[in-house]
Amino acid sequence: TAVISLKGTELLGDGSKVEINGMNTETEKKSEKKKKLLGKGTEPIVQFITDRLKSSSPDAGDVSANLGRIAENLRSLLDPRVPAFVDFSEKIKEIVESNETGRLPKLPKGTRDFAKEQMTVREKAFSVITEVFKRHGAMALDTPVFELRETLMGKYGEDSKLIYDLADQGGELCSLRYDLTVPFARYVAMNGLTSFKRYQIAKVYRRDNPSKGRYREFYQCDFDVAGQFDKMGPDFEVIKILTELLDELNIGDYEVKLNHRKLLDGMLDICGVPPEKFRTICSSIDKLDKQSFEQVKREMVEEKGLTAETANRIGTFVKERGSPLELLSKLKQEGSEFMRHEGSKLALDELDILFKALDKAKCIGKVVFDLSLARGLDYYTGMIFEAVFKGTAQVGSIAAGGRYDNLIGMFGTKQVPAVGVSLGIERVFAIMEQNQKDQKQVIRANETEVLVGIVFGKDEDYDLSLAAEVVNELWSAKIKAEYVMAKKAMKIFERAEATGIPFAVMVGGDERREGIVKVRDMKTRTEEKVPRDRMIEEVLQRLRNS
Amino acid sequence: TAVISLKGTELLGDGSKVEINGMNTETEKKSEKKKKLLGKGTEPIVQFITDRLKSSSPDAGDVSANLGRIAENLRSLLDPRVPAFVDFSEKIKEIVESNETGRLPKLPKGTRDFAKEQMTVREKAFSVITEVFKRHGAMALDTPVFELRETLMGKYGEDSKLIYDLADQGGELCSLRYDLTVPFARYVAMNGLTSFKRYQIAKVYRRDNPSKGRYREFYQCDFDVAGQFDKMGPDFEVIKILTELLDELNIGDYEVKLNHRKLLDGMLDICGVPPEKFRTICSSIDKLDKQSFEQVKREMVEEKGLTAETANRIGTFVKERGSPLELLSKLKQEGSEFMRHEGSKLALDELDILFKALDKAKCIGKVVFDLSLARGLDYYTGMIFEAVFKGTAQVGSIAAGGRYDNLIGMFGTKQVPAVGVSLGIERVFAIMEQNQKDQKQVIRANETEVLVGIVFGKDEDYDLSLAAEVVNELWSAKIKAEYVMAKKAMKIFERAEATGIPFAVMVGGDERREGIVKVRDMKTRTEEKVPRDRMIEEVLQRLRNS
Repeated sequence: TAVISLKGTELLGDGSKVEINGMNTETEKKSEKKKKLLGKGTEPIVQFITDRLKSSSPDAGDVSANLGRIAENLRSLLDPRVPAFVDFSEKIKEIVESNETGRLPKLPKGTRDFAKEQMTVREKAFSVITEVFKRHGAMALDTPVFELRETLMGKYGEDSKLIYDLADQGGELCSLRYDLTVPFARYVAMNGLTSFKRYQIAKVYRRDNPSKGRYREFYQCDFDVAGQFDKMGPDFEVIKILTELLDELNIGDYEVKLNHRKLLDGMLDICGVPPEKFRTICSSIDKLDKQSFEQVKREMVEEKGLTAETANRIGTFVKERGSPLELLSKLKQEGSEFMRHEGSKLALDELDILFKALDKAKCIGKVVFDLSLARGLDYYTGMIFEAVFKGTAQVGSIAAGGRYDNLIGMFGTKQVPAVGVSLGIERVFAIMEQNQKDQKQVIRANETEVLVGIVFGKDEDYDLSLAAEVVNELWSAKIKAEYVMAKKAMKIFERAEATGIPFAVMVGGDERREGIVKVRDMKTRTEEKVPRDRMIEEVLQRLRNS
Repeated sequence: TAVISLKGTELLGDGSKVEINGMNTETEKKSEKKKKLLGKGTEPIVQFITDRLKSSSPDAGDVSANLGRIAENLRSLLDPRVPAFVDFSEKIKEIVESNETGRLPKLPKGTRDFAKEQMTVREKAFSVITEVFKRHGAMALDTPVFELRETLMGKYGEDSKLIYDLADQGGELCSLRYDLTVPFARYVAMNGLTSFKRYQIAKVYRRDNPSKGRYREFYQCDFDVAGQFDKMGPDFEVIKILTELLDELNIGDYEVKLNHRKLLDGMLDICGVPPEKFRTICSSIDKLDKQSFEQVKREMVEEKGLTAETANRIGTFVKERGSPLELLSKLKQEGSEFMRHEGSKLALDELDILFKALDKAKCIGKVVFDLSLARGLDYYTGMIFEAVFKGTAQVGSIAAGGRYDNLIGMFGTKQVPAVGVSLGIERVFAIMEQNQKDQKQVIRANETEVLVGIVFGKDEDYDLSLAAEVVNELWSAKIKAEYVMAKKAMKIFERAEATGIPFAVMVGGDERREGIVKVRDMKTRTEEKVPRDRMIEEVLQRLRNS
């Protein structure tokens, strides 16, 4: 066996140096460490050299005896005239390049940075959303990004496996928040509140498989009302807010599918489903937006043990879908089975109050009363709803929510009824970004209004203090401004045009001598000479008129 | 030994029931589970009963034989006339109370919720800060709350132990961000940017010991400029922004202590400190704001092996502190040792450019050139600074930063020079909250402008749809409004006064019949009758004038 023990390029003798990380097998530990750091190791090179030495000296058992031959061999390897050199150098190039990409820092899977134009879009959406929430008297709440693990446990059913845990570094066991509803419930319970109308816009964390449009860190925008209020008052306001949000975000036509848990349960009861199967049959019904009734029926009968007759009765009910007040009055007709059933009668009475209020608040046109809407989460106890886009296939829900009267009580103090909506804002962002692309809108990454351009002569040094003086006057007048120093005015104009800055204040040698500045409108490419002490006045006036 | 086997209160015979969780030792497993759930177990009670039974029947080996006596004993225990009952009931009360608090959900140590008035203060501060950043053309950046662990490693020295790790749940190893500077550097490197002026306001995480004013989750507000610009241009803007921030937040008088890493190194070189001791001697010098020079000298001589002469020379230098331009011109005087030293001459030239620009931008008055400022972090390479409050003792720094030209290059791509400032905004919040308390300012938790009050007669049912109709008119006009239905107008006024809502729109039976509303100014307690179709106009006008 050939033992390779090369110390750098010492054997080469001719003094030329080739540095290859980790090529030295003597310091294998160090080499391994380096490899880890660099992403790709140098095994292929070591192997290449080994093979080559082996083939030229198959009997090279004793290295010292063959030192001369090895040296000769290596020298030929590094001779550009020898064909093997091409192979060799290609191998090295490949490693260097792959290490270079490997060295670039990365983001954790399923997470993203947002910068510049994207942030502009996000900030605009947040400001629209916050305005709607505040218009309804909601208060802001900010909770920690992680909660005690016990706070989250037992709230999400099977989805608990998607919760991110913090490492156990001594002390308490914590997990990243999974949604904003449980922290809200925890806050209300912990502080013994009996009423709270709050909004929260924050990131939540789910260890889901990342895919297009699905992330592990994403924003939610929640509005919830906890407390005992006039019957259906908070429910009304939640739906009203949802329509205001979607109208004012201006992201396309939508409808709000709405149903009531107690109506669903009553319907199942009427159809002859035993109570212990209510939730599992609900989750079958919930698939009706993606599957045919035949498919869902098969599931209900074959997997969940309903009779075909019961399934068919369910089928006639869940087809009911339409304008809220019309469908409601149909369901409340004399002789209706719902009206003879305590639970569903209660639900219909609640919906009656809700729909009349939504009608008077001029948003009932967006609502569809849909008996097939079931919603996955177990904790809903009353009205449930889901907003979807109209006309676009498979886009899924953009917002959802409902009444959950038992969640806050799960924290062991007292029951406080609550109702809320959660807006899936990542989808909103995606739509807004697409709209802006489609409309070829230029989105600016910042809001700079004026670019101060200081032009110095060929032989002049840049004088930062002059730029500082001029730009500071603008900043002091609360004008958004940046500065640039250059030898040529064109450089400054190019910078303003590239970043969409509407005005430039130019100060060259002539202007300095005359005590003036030139105010340039970047759109019209016109300039006006203005005495230096009237600069602010002039700029402010142009900003007001632009 | 007494064997206790009580099944609830069955032995009591008199039918009175006392329920005590987990008192039944037969079902110990169940009991343990309950104890875990409730926080505090019932061992003391079991022990109490055991002891009592033991003392009254020391020979109670056979339970069945002693059943009558045990029953008698227990009955006496539950007789309020017997003194032991007081002890017994106190023990139960203690357990019930402690369980009640135990049952309340908690927050992880070192974290806080922010709600209502606190959020109002925070939002105000954020808006001031964002406005300053945007005025300087900064772009927003949002990064994930956790980074790959390898991104954070090797950046914080000893403080790395304070990093929060996520649990290893398969996949990548991640950690919560420790500051905003490393994610910024990672972003610049990952995207191959050569210039970026960004701000970020976000929470960072440190597993530090929580104490008054020190939290494990807290906000930082960072502004950084990466890239090659005019010499000292970004440095100038960073200091200028810092003064604008602190001026506009209006939280008290402050000064910005400023120094230069290369000047410090030059000084140490001139004093005869060997280069390998520069950093450790710097950290001694950094203590001069809390310790006397004698103390620091002792550390430098006894612990760090400087000669007394060298330490004394350092002492004469670090006393230098004063108005930037004056002290600079003193240090640049002919014959100055600094001017003969390459590194420190370069630093003085840079400071010369910086100070002249700050002077022209009218903020040099806030800056103190202080040769004793050293800053802890190793990665600074140029100007360093720290803002502190004047006149208040031991408040520590409120903002700090400096130039770090080598950090972005640590991500293995190319060096991009950078400079930035980090504002410790938690302290700002604390000061703003204190100021508002001192000035007895009432901070509102929301911004509601109008409370719609619908008054129904004693025998009338509440009609949600009427409230919905009126309040929706206000919402449609983008007026911030809430509604309340009540039997008495006084209830509505109380609610408006308690929450600081300036106007009420009252709709009672008379108003409904007359087709009017009453607009009430809550401050002056005056009302005006307004036709219903002029309500919006009237309210808008009052809001404009208020």
